[in-house]
Amino acid sequence: MHYHFEDFPAGTAYDLGHELLTAADITDYARRYDPMPFHLDEAAAHQSPFGGLVASGWHTGAVVLGRFVRTLLAHSACQGSYGVDAVRFLHPVRPGDGLSARAEVESAQPHARKPHLGVVGFLLTATNQDHTPVFRMRTRLLFARNGTTATSRAADGGREVTA
Amino acid sequence: MHYHFEDFPAGTAYDLGHELLTAADITDYARRYDPMPFHLDEAAAHQSPFGGLVASGWHTGAVVLGRFVRTLLAHSACQGSYGVDAVRFLHPVRPGDGLSARAEVESAQPHARKPHLGVVGFLLTATNQDHTPVFRMRTRLLFARNGTTATSRAADGGREVTA
Repeated sequence: MHYHFEDFPAGTAYDLGHELLTAADITDYARRYDPMPFHLDEAAAHQSPFGGLVASGWHTGAVVLGRFVRTLLAHSACQGSYGVDAVRFLHPVRPGDGLSARAEVESAQPHARKPHLGVVGFLLTATNQDHTPVFRMRTRLLFARNGTTATSRAADGGREVTA
Repeated sequence: MHYHFEDFPAGTAYDLGHELLTAADITDYARRYDPMPFHLDEAAAHQSPFGGLVASGWHTGAVVLGRFVRTLLAHSACQGSYGVDAVRFLHPVRPGDGLSARAEVESAQPHARKPHLGVVGFLLTATNQDHTPVFRMRTRLLFARNGTTATSRAADGGREVTA
């Protein structure tokens, strides 16, 4: 419990780090959760509109959320999520692509009825190694306000990249 | 390539079947993609606002999309997704919960510029064994129109439950 509502003012942005997707990552996820031919099998994918193996869009979202959790949320007083909106698959993610993820605070408001909580709206985005945007989504999360739990920051927490 | 755009008129609904989530399913997913204490560890989860282990909301979405793909999309002329909107985590999903998933066609329109394609909007929902809604989301998918590829239906394809 390190980051609280007050640590996420609107306009703040965080570098969530990088992650490389291998062909095995893409097909392992697809076998379990999204067995479409173009996520599962290189030969079949060549016949698809994508012309080759591509990651499931939901898989890309899971990787971005994983970076978000590891960099920020796991070191925070996050109390859960309202949901996710505007999930967009902007460009195919292919084997060997290196994704860079980023979070921007779009809104931050005290909870209307619960004074110990606040609601933060994040835009999460990912670009590939060519700086091409491949994914984005918005999510609103509930955080405890400062003073309601311990307030020290994690040494390995998120790096703030703009303000 | 069995279901085409014309097979998804607005108002049609499909039973996507059932899937049980074990504690191992929940923690395996969380370790890889969403390592929050309340998705990962029973003891830590007891101290959280959820009072016990709960599935990652993105994991629940992956399970629902998996049912959608296995029941319908893998037997269709689906050409990809525009994205996902209005993802809502309506109720906690706990170990041993059995999810029933359902897809409803909310809109179906020929593509504005590409006469061989059509766009279908689906509402995907899941309820638990107590018939409590736990998850919903909307997605718009691109399908080839009838006559552009083979048209036979899969014997094991989706069961239409309302019309």
